[in-house]
Order: sequence, then C-alpha cells, then structure tokens
Amino acid sequence: MSFDLIIQDIYSQVKEVQDNGEVASYIPELLNVNPDSFGVYFAANNHIRYGIGDYERRFSIQSVSKVFSLSLAYSMKDEDIWRRLGVEPSGTSYNSLVQLETDLGIPRNPFINAGAIVITDILMSCLANYRQDFLEFVRKLSGENTINYSAKIAASEKTVGYRNIALCNFIKSFGNIENDPEEVLDFYFDICSLEMSCEELSNSFSFLANQGVNPYTSEQVLSKSQSKRINALMQTCGFYDESGEFAFKVGLPGKSGVGGGIVAVHPGEYVISVWSPKLNRKGNSYKGMQFLEKFTTESKLSIF
Amino acid sequence: MSFDLIIQDIYSQVKEVQDNGEVASYIPELLNVNPDSFGVYFAANNHIRYGIGDYERRFSIQSVSKVFSLSLAYSMKDEDIWRRLGVEPSGTSYNSLVQLETDLGIPRNPFINAGAIVITDILMSCLANYRQDFLEFVRKLSGENTINYSAKIAASEKTVGYRNIALCNFIKSFGNIENDPEEVLDFYFDICSLEMSCEELSNSFSFLANQGVNPYTSEQVLSKSQSKRINALMQTCGFYDESGEFAFKVGLPGKSGVGGGIVAVHPGEYVISVWSPKLNRKGNSYKGMQFLEKFTTESKLSIF
Amino acid sequence: MSFDLIIQDIYSQVKEVQDNGEVASYIPELLNVNPDSFGVYFAANNHIRYGIGDYERRFSIQSVSKVFSLSLAYSMKDEDIWRRLGVEPSGTSYNSLVQLETDLGIPRNPFINAGAIVITDILMSCLANYRQDFLEFVRKLSGENTINYSAKIAASEKTVGYRNIALCNFIKSFGNIENDPEEVLDFYFDICSLEMSCEELSNSFSFLANQGVNPYTSEQVLSKSQSKRINALMQTCGFYDESGEFAFKVGLPGKSGVGGGIVAVHPGEYVISVWSPKLNRKGNSYKGMQFLEKFTTESKLSIF
Amino acid sequence: MSFDLIIQDIYSQVKEVQDNGEVASYIPELLNVNPDSFGVYFAANNHIRYGIGDYERRFSIQSVSKVFSLSLAYSMKDEDIWRRLGVEPSGTSYNSLVQLETDLGIPRNPFINAGAIVITDILMSCLANYRQDFLEFVRKLSGENTINYSAKIAASEKTVGYRNIALCNFIKSFGNIENDPEEVLDFYFDICSLEMSCEELSNSFSFLANQGVNPYTSEQVLSKSQSKRINALMQTCGFYDESGEFAFKVGLPGKSGVGGGIVAVHPGEYVISVWSPKLNRKGNSYKGMQFLEKFTTESKLSIF
Repeated sequence: MSFDLIIQDIYSQVKEVQDNGEVASYIPELLNVNPDSFGVYFAANNHIRYGIGDYERRFSIQSVSKVFSLSLAYSMKDEDIWRRLGVEPSGTSYNSLVQLETDLGIPRNPFINAGAIVITDILMSCLANYRQDFLEFVRKLSGENTINYSAKIAASEKTVGYRNIALCNFIKSFGNIENDPEEVLDFYFDICSLEMSCEELSNSFSFLANQGVNPYTSEQVLSKSQSKRINALMQTCGFYDESGEFAFKVGLPGKSGVGGGIVAVHPGEYVISVWSPKLNRKGNSYKGMQFLEKFTTESKLSIF
Repeated sequence: MSFDLIIQDIYSQVKEVQDNGEVASYIPELLNVNPDSFGVYFAANNHIRYGIGDYERRFSIQSVSKVFSLSLAYSMKDEDIWRRLGVEPSGTSYNSLVQLETDLGIPRNPFINAGAIVITDILMSCLANYRQDFLEFVRKLSGENTINYSAKIAASEKTVGYRNIALCNFIKSFGNIENDPEEVLDFYFDICSLEMSCEELSNSFSFLANQGVNPYTSEQVLSKSQSKRINALMQTCGFYDESGEFAFKVGLPGKSGVGGGIVAVHPGEYVISVWSPKLNRKGNSYKGMQFLEKFTTESKLSIF
Repeated sequence: MSFDLIIQDIYSQVKEVQDNGEVASYIPELLNVNPDSFGVYFAANNHIRYGIGDYERRFSIQSVSKVFSLSLAYSMKDEDIWRRLGVEPSGTSYNSLVQLETDLGIPRNPFINAGAIVITDILMSCLANYRQDFLEFVRKLSGENTINYSAKIAASEKTVGYRNIALCNFIKSFGNIENDPEEVLDFYFDICSLEMSCEELSNSFSFLANQGVNPYTSEQVLSKSQSKRINALMQTCGFYDESGEFAFKVGLPGKSGVGGGIVAVHPGEYVISVWSPKLNRKGNSYKGMQFLEKFTTESKLSIF
Repeated sequence: MSFDLIIQDIYSQVKEVQDNGEVASYIPELLNVNPDSFGVYFAANNHIRYGIGDYERRFSIQSVSKVFSLSLAYSMKDEDIWRRLGVEPSGTSYNSLVQLETDLGIPRNPFINAGAIVITDILMSCLANYRQDFLEFVRKLSGENTINYSAKIAASEKTVGYRNIALCNFIKSFGNIENDPEEVLDFYFDICSLEMSCEELSNSFSFLANQGVNPYTSEQVLSKSQSKRINALMQTCGFYDESGEFAFKVGLPGKSGVGGGIVAVHPGEYVISVWSPKLNRKGNSYKGMQFLEKFTTESKLSIF
C-alpha cells in the first residue's frame, strides 16, 4: 500500500477516536485554538509528499522549536556546546530544578527547558541580530518567508512563565548563562511562540532525515555526525518522561510540543508531522501519538 | 564573676585568635567593611547592659532581619502563616531549591531564604506602606529612629541575586507568592540590607527574651506562645546547616547573618549580639561563634 | 503548685482526651499492648520523684534506646564518632535513604535509623560482649537489673525490617559499617526491643539532666560537654520530622519511640517520661505530646 | 565492502588503540581475566556470520543477562510486568536508590539493577525450577547446552553485593518483591554470573533482530510487539547514564555489562557482540564502544 493510502486510512480511524485529552491551558493564549484540529504532513527524501486535514494551518510549535535552536547553535559552535549541557535523558519532569542543583547548573540535555534556555543563551552570544537571524534560519529551512513569532503567545507565556524564570536564574547562579536572564527568557519565549504548519515542519526537518542536507536546496545544514546526534537525542529525550514509551510505540526519533504538534524523523527516509491540540497526561498530543503509532506499525518503518 | 567581667575577658581572648575565615564576597558591597571589626552587646531583662568593641557601629544585618520580618508577619496573621510555610529544619542548604520541588512550593521554615521570601510576600499583602511600615516596626523595637535600609547593599545584592530570583519565581509557580516576584524580591533585598549595631540588635530582640514583651516599653510585641515559637525556630533552624552545631556549642536560640552578625537569646534572661565579619565555612561569623561558645560555657547559661 | 499536683491535674485532663491516634502496627508484636495504657514518671535532680498511671509497666522503648546506644558509644570513643555521622537535622523521614546517597553513607545524626545503625556498629567494634555489655550499661543507669531485650519484639521486627536491612547494607556499600550487616542488624533490633517502664526511663536519663553525672550514684557517665551535646541533639533531632514542632510545643530536649514512649529532659532540673501507645501521624505518642505540652506550659519550665 | 572485511579492518585498528580503561574490580573474581582479550562476532538474519579474535572465549556477561531475564518474564507475563516497573530512562546511576524512594518502590526500567531485581522476583514466582528453567531458556536461545552460571563469580559478587542487598530490601519494603530478598538476590547474582562467548551472545540475541523469531529455529520467542519493546528499551536505557552517548555514537539498541561485553542489535538485519574487559569511566567496554562506533559508521547501518 502506498504512503498516501496508509495515511488516509489511519487519519480516518484516528479522527473518529474519542479524545479524552485536554488542550494545554497553562498558557492562556493557547486555548484560542479549535481543539478538534487534526492535520498530517508526510515528506520523503525522494520528494514524495502528502498532506491531509489541517496540514496547512499554522499552530504554536512550542517545544518542537527546541530542535531548531539546537540545530542553529550546533552548526555554529559544534561540539563546544556540550561543555554547557549534556546528552542524556533526565529522568525527571521537563521543568524540574532538582537535577540542576545536583549537576551544578549543567542541564541534562537540550530538550528539557533548562537545556533549551542554555541553547538560547548560546545563540544570543553568537548572533548579531539573534531574533531576526534565528527566524531567517527557520524560514530558510522551510522555504517559507512568512513564518513568524507570535507576539501574543510569547506575551501570554511570559505572564505565567515563573518556572522558566526560576530555571534561567538558577542556571545563571551557577554561571552557565552569559546574558541577562530577562533577555534570554524574552528570546526563549519568542522561539517557543513560532507558528508553523505540519507542512512547514516536515519540510524544515527534512535535513535530519537526510544526513544534515536539505533535500530541496542541497544545502548542508549540519554535518552528518551532527545530524545523527540530534536524531539520537530526539530518540532518547524528545518526549520528556514519555521518551521510552514513544521509542517503543512509534520507534522513531521525534519531538513534541504542548501546542499539540509532533514531528517524527525516519533517518534516510522521511519526516512526518502531526498536529492535534488535545494532550495526554504526559503533555504529548493524544491523537498525534495514536496516529504515529499506527503509521509506523502499518508502514513497517519503525526502526526497532 | 559578673557579666561585664566575663564578657571583657572572653572578648580579649577571642580578639587575639587568628581568624581564618573570610568576609562574605558574594555581595560585592559587603566587602567594604573592616574585616577586623569586633563588637559585643549584652542586654538583660533586668536592664543590665554591657557593650565592648565595635558595638555601636552599624553593619549589614542580612539574615538576622528574617527574625524581624517573621515577627511582624506573625503578629498580624498569627497561625495563618503556617499554611504557607513549615516549622521544621530543612536539612539542605539555605538557598536550595530541591526541597521546594518535593513540597510543592511550601518552604520548610521561615529562616531559609525560600521561607523568608514567603514571609516578605505576606508582609506586602498586609501592609499599606510595607517598606515604611516594616522600618517603623524595627525602629520601634530598637528605640532608634535612624535605622535604615542600605540602598547600596540592596542594589549590590540585586545584581547577583539570581538564586533568590529563582527561588521566588519557583515558589510563585506553585502559587505560594501573591505579589509580583520582582517587587517581592526588591523588598526582600531591602529587608536584608538593614544596618544596625550590636546594641540596637540586642535591644530590639529583647522581647524574645521576655515572653513577647518589650522590657523597655512594656509593649506586647508578640504573644507568649508566638515568642516561644520564634525561639524554638531559632534553636532548630537559625544557623542553616550548622544549627545542630550551634545548639550544642552555644546552647541558645539564635540567628546569624552573612554580614557577620549573630544574635542569641536566653529566654527569661537576656539577649547578646556579636559582630565580626569574617565567616567560617558554613557562613556564620567565625569569632562570633567562638565568643558565644565561651560565653555560655563560662556564664553557665547554656540551656542544655 | 507543686509538681505532683500539676502532673495529677494534667494526667486527668489528658486521660479523658479522645485519642484518634493508632498503635504502631508495622511490627506485628507491638500490637499486643493495651492501647489505653498511660503512665508518667517525673524524676528531679533534687530527688523529688512522682509517678502516676501505668508508670511501672514496661513497654517497648524502641527509638528511645538510641539515646542509650549513643551515650555508650560516645563515652568510649568520644569525638571520634563524628567522623562517621553528623549532628544536624536530616529534613527527611527517619528511614529515608536519599540523604545517604548524597552524603556518601554518612548519616545526618544518631537519631535517624541510619545513624543509630552506625552507632550500633561502633558498639560492636568496641565491646567484647556487646549484647551483654550494652544491657549492663542500661541496667546500671536505671539501677534495675531485670531490664532485658524482648526476643519476641526483636524477632517480630526482623521479619519486617526490610527498610533497615536496606539502610545497613547501603551504608556498608559506602564502607561506613565495619561488621557484618546481618549481625549489626540483629544487635540493632535487640537494642530497639528493650523493655522499660516510665520510672526506669526517667531514672536512667537523669545523668543528662545533671551534666553527665548520675544523681543517684554520683557516677560520671558522660563528660559535661558530651551530655550537653546529647541534649542539643535531642532538641534538634529527637522527633524525626516533628522536631521543630516538639521544640516549640514542649520546649525541651527529648526522644520518642514508636512504642509510645517519650522522655524529655530539662537540663539542670529533671527528667519526665510519658507512655501512651497510640501515635499521631508523625509517629510520636499522641497523649504523650499533649501531656508534655501542657506540663511545660503549666510548670513554666520550657526552655524558650 | 563486505561485513567480514569491514570487521577485520576495524578490529585491527581498535586492537592497537592504547586502552586507558580498567577491568572492573568491584567483584574480586572479575579480575581473573586477561585484560587484553578482544573478540567480535557478527550474526545476520540472513545467516551470514563472522567472528574474529577471542569470539569463542566465554566471559562473565553480567548485565547483558538482564535482556534474557526480561525476555523470559515478558514472554510469560506479557504487559503485566509493567505494573511493577517502568519503561523510561532513570537519569541516575544504575544502582541508585533515590528514584525508588520517590517512586515508592517502582524501578524506572528493567535494565537498572532495581528493575532487574524485580524481574528476577517475577521469574521466581512463575517458574517451578527457576534456576534451571532460566538456564534452559538461554541454552535454547543460543543452541549451546554447556552455558552455565559461574558459582565462583556469583559467590564473589555476593561478598560485596551490599548495594544490591540494599536495593532488594528497599523494594521489598514497598511491597514490590514477592519472594524472600535473600533468595531473590542469590538468583539475581546467578543470572549475572552467566558465562558466554561473543558467538553465543550474538546467536541468542538474534530473535530481537528478527521480530521475536529465532532465525535458526524459527521459534517465536517473543511477539513482534514485545521484541520491539525490548529493542526500544535497549535504545533508551541499555547503557546506564551513557545511553544517550551510545545512541549517538553507535545508533543501535544494545546492552553492556561490566564484564566488558556489549551486544548491539540492528532490528531486521543483524546482531553484533564485542568483548574487551577494560571499561571506560561510565562502566562500558572501552574498546567495545570504539569498535561499534566505527562499525556502524563504516557499514552505514546506524539507525540515525
């Protein structure tokens, strides 16, 4: 069966599933979304593409953006970034402060909030116009110039971002933040506020399915080794404390966000993005997880 | 032997001790102090008083102020304050965040930074002009109207107060801070910046040696039970992770600050304050600890 | 009012209190006790003594025994024991393993289980016939030669002592236990199984109220400084995670056990022991706490 | 280039590498091994096999055995086992007790010691002659009837196994061990003491590369889904706190042991086992890690 038929079939099944999840409410502005939205976009290295449902509708990508910020920092500083954060699963909640106290301000990996904040700080120290430069990086990856931050979402997150303020200042107290914590957080919230569609996400992640090379532009975004590292990190740490479950059920490296988006990468083959705003108890898209589990099972493309 | 002779004698002995401690350097402004300063002031309920050395010189009282803020909050809200913080030793460092994560934002006691920040928040919610009202409370206790905050010290602390910013925002993320974290911290740093002399400290702590009644003005500052509670808290939690050591060596309830001040209370009898800026490894005044240990031994007034 | 009248009066009041606590059930054998037992025994340095209720009835003293084992080890090894354990409150539950992992096998104080196990190990290394020698020490303190271990209680505790086995082997893995863990635990369970009455407890604790000297025999059990140290430790660590509460409510150094016994010491004055088997949520005798709170309030002998 | 040539080539390179690691010394008996031993065995689903160096020499497989015990328990109890342990990375050391206290005795995953001890307990409750039955399971998987426990190694481990005794009794204190802790540990140490060669390991892991079916006997050892789960677990948790690093460098699910063995599985393709006793700082074979990293790079068979 071809990919489009598999996707159509699973999409129909999962669309009907009674979804007991809830839309993320901790950021007030995130509630302004149709909870029944559901979109999927598949993009293979061989240029086969297929979208269904709300795949062109932009949503708040939230933590999915951590892959972009890591990629940009990694491309500029290479292995130097690992002096300031680790590559191992954290074993604690995505916004825990406990591990930081034990490890003297070195976050466990770039996909927990603490790690993404350190990456944000690295970007600020490297880039002349960091806000604009980062945006250009994502726009170029996706081939779409209208992608932008959402000032509303960033402002909404800022009003309730106490835990992240705590994380950033805590890391600063250990000397592992170079810039002013308030400015670091402003940029961090901006990065999280990026709005993109499933189609744009799949396209911009394609270099990770293709050994670091953007298959559309042939540009080398990251080295082969760097691309492998990011995939390995998504595999072991991409889903907070549900990473083991995702590795089993979906069997692909991936990254989720509380906006309800999930991007999964099959190295050497394709990228697939799913969006459905209602979340399971662990904070990952309820239907997104279901879709991807069925998809890798039926397409027999799990890596395990 | 009378108190004044005992004090003179021990003062001379301890003054000569080679002091390997160091002046607190984490707040840059605190370094602007003569490291050899050394003062003692004794004030008994029976109005016997005696001072020696730099006992009239004001210094940054830092955490000693936590007793004043607790007293004022306790006098206004009574047992209600214990809904928002505990009364048990923390077992971890004074500025640790770990315990807060386990206990969902409820600090262990009012003398670790987290607890003092919650007390600060309570004061702000209760007092119309909290900055001025708190100052008046301390001035009245001490009978000295020129006591004031040090804008320089507060500003200096603010430039490096990342750990406290982390603590305050972390507690806020659990809903246990009512006011704006930045304003809470501004007031918290002001409270810590109070400058007082040993004489002023001993006078203003006298109500704790006298069942809650200021022995000079006969004013009931706290109830007998509240006064007992604060003494018990100073006994078990007044010296961070050296409380057990202080309980043994000195055998009195007390409170220390990184400015090098220590106040000790013998309930029913007297208050004694010591100041010497060089600190031991645990952050308590090196000579202050030595003086008090010898004093309670020779005066046979330890409670144990 | 004289002590005997105060005690009679409070005893009658507290006897009538509806006691919602429960008898410790984790050791099956402990359930074989009359839950309504209630005894008090007061013994002053000046030889005034007074007992009421079940004060002559022996019960399982459990953790109260930790004061005896500490005293004997301290008398033999003096300050050397502090190389192997600390003197600070733990801030965690009495049988927690977490702190040990951070502190590499050094228990926080001798009154949590981990610390008492290390003390037990010290006794074994020092004493030729440790089981008998320890018993003689307690018998001599109390002047009562029939005091003994309860083989039944020790056996009962052993059948469910998994947490203590874990603690002992965990400490051994850090090298802080010299003897065979199984033998250490056998002796530890024996020590906990001691059966004594309120009268015997008050008598045998009297040296702690009298600067280390047994007031009946004039024997120097511990030095003045050692006696002070133990009182300070009981004050800050004697009631697990309710030490702060006890310091406030009772205002005396003391030690409790899950058998429902509590001994409190007023240094320089007296010892008072209470026994009532039903425990509050924190594992301390419900009526025992009530009695002591009222007693120090009415006798005005709190140290705060 | 064919697999045998790639393997030969890398074997020669890595053999010459100066190896700064050290042979595991915590189990005295493990030191009785030639530290320069180095063997590799490759076994593909398509029956291509290739061995080099000490590939026929048996060694102590230690934690590699955790995959066998998990497989057998999983085959008998299916998803029921996840009521008693989790599937997520632990983020702490392989023998940490901290996480167990927070999670009330539920180990994070079956590859940390705590989890493997629970699995051992499950086997004991299910199997009539657990010691023999488990051995038969491994013998059948490998097609080699002389595989056996090492009484010497098991005894040696037992003499120093304090941490594991602590773990087992700690879990028992939460009710998550059904059998007698001492018997559970005896069996656990036996399982760890299994001696196998690289060839035998590769053969017996082949069902995990083949969707649960032993490619030599066509027997269905585990369901497809169970096999996927175990591979996912090896990917995220197989290398203690170096799992993220292994996922990146090698890019395959795998399991290591302190005896110096590592088995890696490429689902759908092959199994490769490496043995070299000197360990890196994280406790994984120094040359084993190097060999596998080069092998997946040159064979282009990493999954990332």
